[in-house]
Amino acid sequence: MADSASIPNTPLLKDELDIVIPTIRNLDFLEMWRPFFQPYHLIIVQDGDPSKTIKVPEGFDYELYNRNDINRILGPKASCISFKDSACRCFGYMISKKKYIYTIDDDCFVAKDPSGKEINALEQHIKNLLCPSTPFFFNTLYDPFRDGADFVRGYPFSLREGVSTAVSHGLWLNIPDYDAPTQLVKPRERNTRYVDAVLTVPKGTLFPMCGMNLAFDRELIGPAMYFGLMGDGQPIGRYDDMWAGWCTKVICDHLGLGVKTGLPYIWHSKASNPFVNLKKEYKGIFWQEELIPFFQSAVLPKDCTTVQKCYIELSKQVREKLGKIDPYFDKLADAMVTWIEAWDELNPSGAAAEKPNGTAK
Amino acid sequence: MADSASIPNTPLLKDELDIVIPTIRNLDFLEMWRPFFQPYHLIIVQDGDPSKTIKVPEGFDYELYNRNDINRILGPKASCISFKDSACRCFGYMISKKKYIYTIDDDCFVAKDPSGKEINALEQHIKNLLCPSTPFFFNTLYDPFRDGADFVRGYPFSLREGVSTAVSHGLWLNIPDYDAPTQLVKPRERNTRYVDAVLTVPKGTLFPMCGMNLAFDRELIGPAMYFGLMGDGQPIGRYDDMWAGWCTKVICDHLGLGVKTGLPYIWHSKASNPFVNLKKEYKGIFWQEELIPFFQSAVLPKDCTTVQKCYIELSKQVREKLGKIDPYFDKLADAMVTWIEAWDELNPSGAAAEKPNGTAK
Repeated sequence: MADSASIPNTPLLKDELDIVIPTIRNLDFLEMWRPFFQPYHLIIVQDGDPSKTIKVPEGFDYELYNRNDINRILGPKASCISFKDSACRCFGYMISKKKYIYTIDDDCFVAKDPSGKEINALEQHIKNLLCPSTPFFFNTLYDPFRDGADFVRGYPFSLREGVSTAVSHGLWLNIPDYDAPTQLVKPRERNTRYVDAVLTVPKGTLFPMCGMNLAFDRELIGPAMYFGLMGDGQPIGRYDDMWAGWCTKVICDHLGLGVKTGLPYIWHSKASNPFVNLKKEYKGIFWQEELIPFFQSAVLPKDCTTVQKCYIELSKQVREKLGKIDPYFDKLADAMVTWIEAWDELNPSGAAAEKPNGTAK
Repeated sequence: MADSASIPNTPLLKDELDIVIPTIRNLDFLEMWRPFFQPYHLIIVQDGDPSKTIKVPEGFDYELYNRNDINRILGPKASCISFKDSACRCFGYMISKKKYIYTIDDDCFVAKDPSGKEINALEQHIKNLLCPSTPFFFNTLYDPFRDGADFVRGYPFSLREGVSTAVSHGLWLNIPDYDAPTQLVKPRERNTRYVDAVLTVPKGTLFPMCGMNLAFDRELIGPAMYFGLMGDGQPIGRYDDMWAGWCTKVICDHLGLGVKTGLPYIWHSKASNPFVNLKKEYKGIFWQEELIPFFQSAVLPKDCTTVQKCYIELSKQVREKLGKIDPYFDKLADAMVTWIEAWDELNPSGAAAEKPNGTAK
């Protein structure tokens, strides 16, 4: 197995993975990622003013979509894609034709492991996605599939095959992903603890999925990775990835798919403004108190055998049970349906279950 | 807060914690632990031939119980305490009058952290037990109560108070806690990965609890820490701690108590014989395939408000649902009841819930 900090000779999944980057600025941050990202194709989703030119460093293979492109491609269904919010990134998931997606924020840089080696985050995500998850029982030595680890005594043998991994959630050194109140209370807190672990989030347990450093198997779970309605014209922001994470986890649990979190770390360079964040978040801070019990108790019927069916069912439950919190959730439920319609339009070959083989087109 | 590898001036919980050690040999291993353990009281449970003298290094404050003592103290109820198996350690939990227990095997030594500092395992366990757990939602930066960490964005504020921690499960460097088949397949595998994390095992998730390096709050969960019938005259061994862990986790989940795993590490010096282990384990390897679904689906009624009530209820379910696997489980269900009777006899002040204040007597 290649050393996790080295550049493999043949980049893993080179033709089967797209890197999706939402941005409003020139992508100078890619310079630092060049040794790791250059072999891959980038999908850049330009947020905000479409007349602005986004500069991409030379030598990268990319396609770029601005708001005009999104409107042209999706027509009226473009309403489900957020504007003036990094939630717009999910358009990139939809337009991709690859099996795997890695998405990263443009204020995230290459981190170093405790030995000082630069971390190839993408390579670690791919390793996470390519080896199984173990959601049904907790392994105290963390990921049993890593070199030097295994299942410990008392781990049922029937569960050791694991299940397919749909999501790999990476972490952040330096600026931790805190909400506005925590940012305000602890302005100087930095994450300096490198925890050398990957673990499966157990079945039935929800987690806060951050979109800063995230990879997933598009064929297994893509249609659930909708980042909701945030930003321009919406009463809420900074819950795009959380929403996607909660929906995704419920659907992964239902379909028997795994979600991993832990390694790899990226270096998160700059804290966003906590006052601006508080404005975006404050309704979410109330709403999440009702959203979590909703997702914790959500049950999907047995005939929901594809991600799309699960997602449509979830949209119904959102309308029915969350609509009474705020009319926003009716709008969101509509957008969830539109998202699936748009997904299926752009991905006519259908859900992963129907595809004979999980290779890139 | 004291540096985790230093010796605090006043040892934490000095008069509120007993160290329980099951053994069949002289306790020379305590020499290495002297700086950390000497301030505490030890309860030594001597297994095997009671006529043998166990030497304890000078300067340690201890009481020692051999089989004759156990028989004398418990009378016919001594039948619930295993013989010729380290499961006998649970007698120490029962006879203790302290609020906290730390139990460690006599082949476990002081480990070093990556900086080379000796790890004060007991101090870390105490820290784990004294700060809350978060079983209802996963925090991606692990224990939010550690220095330099917190709850991440998207973590519901209503859940940030956490719940009381009942169990702290520590890990092992060098020889990992593998079952016999894994030992046979990977005789040279050593655990060299120091994962700098403590985390709560989520509600509804079972884990394999190892008794090698384990601490718990006796008042909160003590009566559930029964290590079952193993060893002499029993068809199974090496499932004592697993059994305790599964029962404990189900009861913690029911009572809203937390279980933490991760730090601290001890240095596990010597692998036990895999052939001997296979003989002890092999029925357990089959049985655990039915035990795990049993514990995963076990529901305790609302009126089970104390650990004792929960445990008696669980013993009924064991008899009813596991008795058909093997008559051993009928015997085990009886022993579970005997254990609670013996516990209550030795601890007449009753369950933690009834005690006005959690201080040592």
